[in-house]
Amino acid sequence: MPELDLSRSSVELTRTLCDIPSVSGEEAALADAIERAVRAVPHLIVDRHGDTVVARTDLARSQRVAIAGHIDTVPVHENLPVRDIESDGERFLWGRGTVDMKAGVAVQLILAAELTAPRVDVTWMWYDHEEVDAASNGLTKLAAARPDLFAADFAILGEPTQGFIEGGCNGNLRAVVRTHGRRAHSARSWMGVNAIHAASGILDRLTRYRPREVIVDGLVYREGLNAVRIRGGVAGNVIPDLCEVEVNHRFAPSTDPAEAEAHLREVFDGFELQVVDVAAGARPGMQAPLAREFAAAVGGEVRAKLGWTDVARFGGLGIPAVNYGPGDPALAHHDDERVPIAQIEGVERGLRAWLTD
Amino acid sequence: MPELDLSRSSVELTRTLCDIPSVSGEEAALADAIERAVRAVPHLIVDRHGDTVVARTDLARSQRVAIAGHIDTVPVHENLPVRDIESDGERFLWGRGTVDMKAGVAVQLILAAELTAPRVDVTWMWYDHEEVDAASNGLTKLAAARPDLFAADFAILGEPTQGFIEGGCNGNLRAVVRTHGRRAHSARSWMGVNAIHAASGILDRLTRYRPREVIVDGLVYREGLNAVRIRGGVAGNVIPDLCEVEVNHRFAPSTDPAEAEAHLREVFDGFELQVVDVAAGARPGMQAPLAREFAAAVGGEVRAKLGWTDVARFGGLGIPAVNYGPGDPALAHHDDERVPIAQIEGVERGLRAWLTD
Repeated sequence: MPELDLSRSSVELTRTLCDIPSVSGEEAALADAIERAVRAVPHLIVDRHGDTVVARTDLARSQRVAIAGHIDTVPVHENLPVRDIESDGERFLWGRGTVDMKAGVAVQLILAAELTAPRVDVTWMWYDHEEVDAASNGLTKLAAARPDLFAADFAILGEPTQGFIEGGCNGNLRAVVRTHGRRAHSARSWMGVNAIHAASGILDRLTRYRPREVIVDGLVYREGLNAVRIRGGVAGNVIPDLCEVEVNHRFAPSTDPAEAEAHLREVFDGFELQVVDVAAGARPGMQAPLAREFAAAVGGEVRAKLGWTDVARFGGLGIPAVNYGPGDPALAHHDDERVPIAQIEGVERGLRAWLTD
Repeated sequence: MPELDLSRSSVELTRTLCDIPSVSGEEAALADAIERAVRAVPHLIVDRHGDTVVARTDLARSQRVAIAGHIDTVPVHENLPVRDIESDGERFLWGRGTVDMKAGVAVQLILAAELTAPRVDVTWMWYDHEEVDAASNGLTKLAAARPDLFAADFAILGEPTQGFIEGGCNGNLRAVVRTHGRRAHSARSWMGVNAIHAASGILDRLTRYRPREVIVDGLVYREGLNAVRIRGGVAGNVIPDLCEVEVNHRFAPSTDPAEAEAHLREVFDGFELQVVDVAAGARPGMQAPLAREFAAAVGGEVRAKLGWTDVARFGGLGIPAVNYGPGDPALAHHDDERVPIAQIEGVERGLRAWLTD
């Protein structure tokens, strides 16, 4: 059974965590190792729920912060074990999970063990099934089973942000826009109605659409509306009676899901539209005192998070939440996933500086 | 083993032929029955090649006519055995194969046995695998193995035409038109290029396209250009890098395949285009003396055939060819396939009148 040594450096621990593969659904061995390591730390109260491990301080501080990271990865693709590489004079850990997001988890584990008396009480959460559907997500299940563990005044998610604070997140909506026609033999096409030709109107609206940039709590959220899938057709000699365009809308956290849906219905007025998935965004909450103190301690620019992350789960509970972790999110899920060692160390310094004040 | 009684009526024989299921690839039992029945007819010389049966007269007539029909059907869909139905005072045989095209084959078999001294020599051909790819088609294989059997001055294919003569056929071309883009996470869509949005230009051209009507040898061929399939997309959160639109072009028999392809390249100028399948049409050949005599004997309007049929195989050999058979082609492949009994009898009368003069 793999052992985690929380007294070593966060870079070494990143390597160990990555080399215990934990693709979504196969996190048990890693969750076991994390649980055993944090149960050995006297100042932490540990709970286990499925493959999610929660470790809390109980210092009767006036404020509590949740700091969370997921322990699963997307499938390995010949990019394990982890390797040390150097590129343009910069040192990296290369391999699956280095960016998304075991370096962030490593920093959290090191600090959970090291900081016996942080300035706020901390609830550390390491959870499973983030890379798959929302219903399987360890945080979703934990919130249903143990809502008490979510009591917090502020939350930090260790998702990759290149070591910058990224506040909140955009909302995310997927919908299918459909056209209907009437089948006919393509030798007598005028006896039918071509649903793929009718989808021309949907694509026209998409190409003409100009997404907004929306300022929320001082941060700029860039929106988006894109076709992500298109399907239509029956056979090579049949006029198609159905065409489906799946669109993905990213909307600023000042817009709620109902408003986002209403906007799409306006954009695609005249077409059948069915929402298949929607997740609210999260406001950055950078006006909250704890958030401002965190930003001051960490330093550097505060940005808007454009991708949807689990910060929205905290936002939904009224808890201001930010993303803060090492690694470039554009390299997440990439075969060439790699994290700069300096960013792991920088995030470790930033979190330690704020928690010890 | 099923027995075919060629002395009964063509309507009765249609019933028997349909009730011997012969979906493409499973024609052997029916081919065996046909072969045995025509080998019992003294004035016919019989050849068998795979599941194709050829029966010829050898009367040293100055002219020879090929009369052909395929014996396979598309899959049965709870529409066998054949039933007698009546609708709006008209009597039908209902079931798979009644239209496409066992009624036509039944008429041919009856006349092959009955007409000991037709005014022209006749080469009767009953072939397999018409409803599937061209490479499997029994006529394709016979033409490669026994080109001598295709010697003829005129050809009649018994495909359903509602008892009218339909001359020649339109050509048929399928092509894939592609757009390329660049993948990106849909939360940062501006870092990618959306190939589905780019396909808007392809659909615009299709919706603006106005097909021609072309007069060839006095018959009007209506052309067509339609999307029959569209595919694009990688995942719900990825900007797609490829979109493919499959188009089907039906072109008049006065246009050859190279001209049809050049036309499409002009229509989709600026897009990648790949021809996946092309078949030349067939000119109606109604100026040929035998064709005119045939039209005069049968009577009624002569129309253009819009769907592609095996007449093009004869056209490609320089043999004028027409379609002439009972049944509405719009009901071919339909679950509710049914042929009017009057049309079976009418086509039998028409062919007999011409062949006996």
